[in-house]
Amino acid sequence: MSLITVGTMAFDAIETPFGKVDKIVGGSATYVAYAASNFVNDVKQISIIGYDFPTEELEELKSRGVKVDGVEMITDKKSFFWSGKYHTDMNTRDTLVTDLNVLADFNPIVPESYQGAEFLMLGNLMPKLQMSVINQLKVRPKLIVMDTMNFWMDIALDDLKEVLTKVDVLLVNDGEARQLSNEVSLVKAAKKIMTMGPKFLIIKKGEHGALLFHENHVFYAPALPLEEVFDPTGAGDTFAGGFIGHLAKTKDISFENMKTAIIVGSAMASYCVEKFGPERLKEVNKADIQSRIDEFVQLVSFDIDLV
Amino acid sequence: MSLITVGTMAFDAIETPFGKVDKIVGGSATYVAYAASNFVNDVKQISIIGYDFPTEELEELKSRGVKVDGVEMITDKKSFFWSGKYHTDMNTRDTLVTDLNVLADFNPIVPESYQGAEFLMLGNLMPKLQMSVINQLKVRPKLIVMDTMNFWMDIALDDLKEVLTKVDVLLVNDGEARQLSNEVSLVKAAKKIMTMGPKFLIIKKGEHGALLFHENHVFYAPALPLEEVFDPTGAGDTFAGGFIGHLAKTKDISFENMKTAIIVGSAMASYCVEKFGPERLKEVNKADIQSRIDEFVQLVSFDIDLV
Repeated sequence: MSLITVGTMAFDAIETPFGKVDKIVGGSATYVAYAASNFVNDVKQISIIGYDFPTEELEELKSRGVKVDGVEMITDKKSFFWSGKYHTDMNTRDTLVTDLNVLADFNPIVPESYQGAEFLMLGNLMPKLQMSVINQLKVRPKLIVMDTMNFWMDIALDDLKEVLTKVDVLLVNDGEARQLSNEVSLVKAAKKIMTMGPKFLIIKKGEHGALLFHENHVFYAPALPLEEVFDPTGAGDTFAGGFIGHLAKTKDISFENMKTAIIVGSAMASYCVEKFGPERLKEVNKADIQSRIDEFVQLVSFDIDLV
Repeated sequence: MSLITVGTMAFDAIETPFGKVDKIVGGSATYVAYAASNFVNDVKQISIIGYDFPTEELEELKSRGVKVDGVEMITDKKSFFWSGKYHTDMNTRDTLVTDLNVLADFNPIVPESYQGAEFLMLGNLMPKLQMSVINQLKVRPKLIVMDTMNFWMDIALDDLKEVLTKVDVLLVNDGEARQLSNEVSLVKAAKKIMTMGPKFLIIKKGEHGALLFHENHVFYAPALPLEEVFDPTGAGDTFAGGFIGHLAKTKDISFENMKTAIIVGSAMASYCVEKFGPERLKEVNKADIQSRIDEFVQLVSFDIDLV
């Protein structure tokens, strides 16, 4: 099953309480691709990179079945660069540097070879660009999943709201859900956001797991309690990649299967945070993923017959 | 099955974004008793009250099977009074007033009629008083559950550590687990705390649920996503009351049954927050409790066969 992913491919400089790296490959589309390619061997990437993006990284992605026809390379500019420092609790971070570089020119073009894809993952990007990708698709995908962030709610809310009317699943964190809805209660926030377009809403709560809302249903997936969270960068994108990867693999977009997809996404994210950048994601295999999913099953299973 | 609970019975003044009350019955032992009495008809209360504590409240508790022989009344002093104001997110609060009143004289005496109880719930109190209750028991209970707070870690850490060596289950929130262990990772914190005495550790995370640790096992119980959290006061004590109430009722102190007990405790807590003080707890019946437990089952159930 084919899956188009749109987002950034970039360099990050990251500092956590456990160490720092000055330059490591990152970007939302990179993480999505590494996660989703465990489930789908036809991930169609749309992004933009500079002359400095490593050829080996593109080769590595291609070897995992990721198509890069839609990855534009600008030969006289550098790749997007982000630098951040995490606080001790790892739940919050300060952005130190944001060098847009090639991202300032990003005007995503959907290659002809990508048409007909049944799943679309819109990574966190300027809403106008997300909309442009949707508009270029000749056949509406079976499922459109959208990520976004508070930044776009601050500066491009109208554009964001327009994209919302076109998507099936929205991914935000708890603070963003509250901001978008003007509601403190996440249940109320979810109800309001689901009137804006998305039929499904996933609220990510970092180390506290994720909630999936649909109509009057709600599902709570915990995050695996980890001994060490080495670097949370990309965990949300990795979660998204595992989520849509599982859905694309199974071709089942029911609420029940989305629950499973969230567990799969959480398992992928739990690996992502074990090393800097996408390093750990490159190492894990199907057995590792299954083993982590089994841990999730153990983590939440209980026998209520005794009550 | 008999259960001794030790803690405060008090008045609270509470302000939340949804309203305020100037004086409502509260106190850790009050909440524990209201919750546990749904499961055990022999809750043996140990506390201290002033002349102003309402007779009707004692009668209400007695009508639920709560014994008050161990509740000392000081006729020339007022009951313990606490006043607090919750922030908009309801996860944090400021204490405005703490009038110890009778609590300054509290020297809990275990009545002879309480001896032989198989379960002991030590509510959040000065560690020396918790220890005194343990020492007065002629037969060690089958299970001792202890609640505490950061305040005692700040001013009575050595006493607290001594009590820890005597208890089976410790209840703390995430910040307290980190403070007690000097570990940021909750997994590492749990491992360290379990070397201090308790064989089981419950880390409460408020709206993010609770974690149960035992040896190498961990269980994650989410909190029910609620449309309105009206007043979180007493939710932790109510959780404790439901938890130990279920264990006392079933007489099963296995890890498996503690998972169920956590779901029961969470169900009770989810009712507690719907109204000010223990008001909502007085209304719920067995069918309500079962219905909320069913919601928990729905909330976390997923089918992983599809992976």
